[in-house]
Amino acid sequence: MTNFRLTLEYDGTDFDGWQIQAGGRRTVQGSLQEGIAQVTGRLVQVEGSGRTDAGVHAWGQVASVQLEPRLDASTLQRALNGVLPRDISVTEAVAAPADFRARGDARSKLYCYRFWNGATPSPLRARFSSWEPRPLDLEAMRAAARALSGRHDFASFQAAGSSVAHTVRTLSRLELHGEVRGEIDLLAEGNGFLRHMVRNIAGTLVEVGLLRRAADSMPALLAARDRRRAGPTAPAAGLALVRVHY
Amino acid sequence: MTNFRLTLEYDGTDFDGWQIQAGGRRTVQGSLQEGIAQVTGRLVQVEGSGRTDAGVHAWGQVASVQLEPRLDASTLQRALNGVLPRDISVTEAVAAPADFRARGDARSKLYCYRFWNGATPSPLRARFSSWEPRPLDLEAMRAAARALSGRHDFASFQAAGSSVAHTVRTLSRLELHGEVRGEIDLLAEGNGFLRHMVRNIAGTLVEVGLLRRAADSMPALLAARDRRRAGPTAPAAGLALVRVHY
Repeated sequence: MTNFRLTLEYDGTDFDGWQIQAGGRRTVQGSLQEGIAQVTGRLVQVEGSGRTDAGVHAWGQVASVQLEPRLDASTLQRALNGVLPRDISVTEAVAAPADFRARGDARSKLYCYRFWNGATPSPLRARFSSWEPRPLDLEAMRAAARALSGRHDFASFQAAGSSVAHTVRTLSRLELHGEVRGEIDLLAEGNGFLRHMVRNIAGTLVEVGLLRRAADSMPALLAARDRRRAGPTAPAAGLALVRVHY
Repeated sequence: MTNFRLTLEYDGTDFDGWQIQAGGRRTVQGSLQEGIAQVTGRLVQVEGSGRTDAGVHAWGQVASVQLEPRLDASTLQRALNGVLPRDISVTEAVAAPADFRARGDARSKLYCYRFWNGATPSPLRARFSSWEPRPLDLEAMRAAARALSGRHDFASFQAAGSSVAHTVRTLSRLELHGEVRGEIDLLAEGNGFLRHMVRNIAGTLVEVGLLRRAADSMPALLAARDRRRAGPTAPAAGLALVRVHY
């Protein structure tokens, strides 16, 4: 068997997330496994670096899959891109060491959450951003982001109903780029993320940017370990998994 | 009556172009007129700066429409954005002089044709660009673009079957920005465009970029005044009307 590492770009709009689900919903993992079955004749399981939620995009999701070495990596890539739906692409395929695992070996991930901060809706950006029509105070948001950077217990930013015991994570990077009344990108990099964590941070930072929540309130919010104290979950369309580091 | 000038952004993917057509197809003009009817109770005709073809986008299409002065411009804008479909937005609305006409008064238009020149398809760019997988020779394309700049008879670049008598147009700008293996934008500005002219120039420049057509062959191509001598019409998804100057 050859262990392949595949890098995937996808438009998450029309997917019910990464993970195969009961009930035949359209998922990235399911579509990829179907494509591999078409190319190789075998139904095999692919492992993603992590799940992306319904509607979330990826510039560089990574998956590992073991296949009989009938195909070299670039032939596999071309064949897959020939059969995959238009909203998924294999942007890289390489033969990886036998023990490489997309999920277990991921050292860190970079996400980008994009806001459109114009006064009017933007049809050309709507698919890949979330619209906030009121002007945001970027400096306040940056101050709050600095307070969330580093190693913290992010229980307040975990999806309601999650039951992960260990909620301490390290954000090595939490930065805002762009400008008020333009596109604003929140870059979040870390060694692990709780469910909805980036979108809950994004929703909370918007409240800070609207001056509804104090920029210096982040330490208390972290200490509360209470999802109800943080802001709303920002819409999925704004989020993209940019890169996975190994 | 008040004469309003509306600036429109739209995602052209799901429209059968700007112009209202028989048969109830979904058009930008039709959707805009329906929105205005919902807001004002009157079915009126709006005039666009020009037609955009099916699938072509706009960052800044301009329309003029005469309405009873019951609404001020910003109220009209907000009301329209409340009822228009998600793929059209009024990004600006102003009360214009009584004799302003979006079509007749347009002095020049700027279009952008975007290519994705990566080796693999890009789902996150597919909606707003055209994919050329083979590496393009940008310098050759630039030399050809320079030869097409200025005042020429563009009959060779007019849609087959068009019967416009006067085919001389002036391209005040025809520039390529970006990089090989990345996004490449063809910016085309002029005082008037023949049907499919930008897409036919784009398709011809791709042939130059693939070295299938000599960069110095543009003067002969212009002189031929024969659509069959130029390259194919590049796909609509790559084209956007960026701005109209008055």
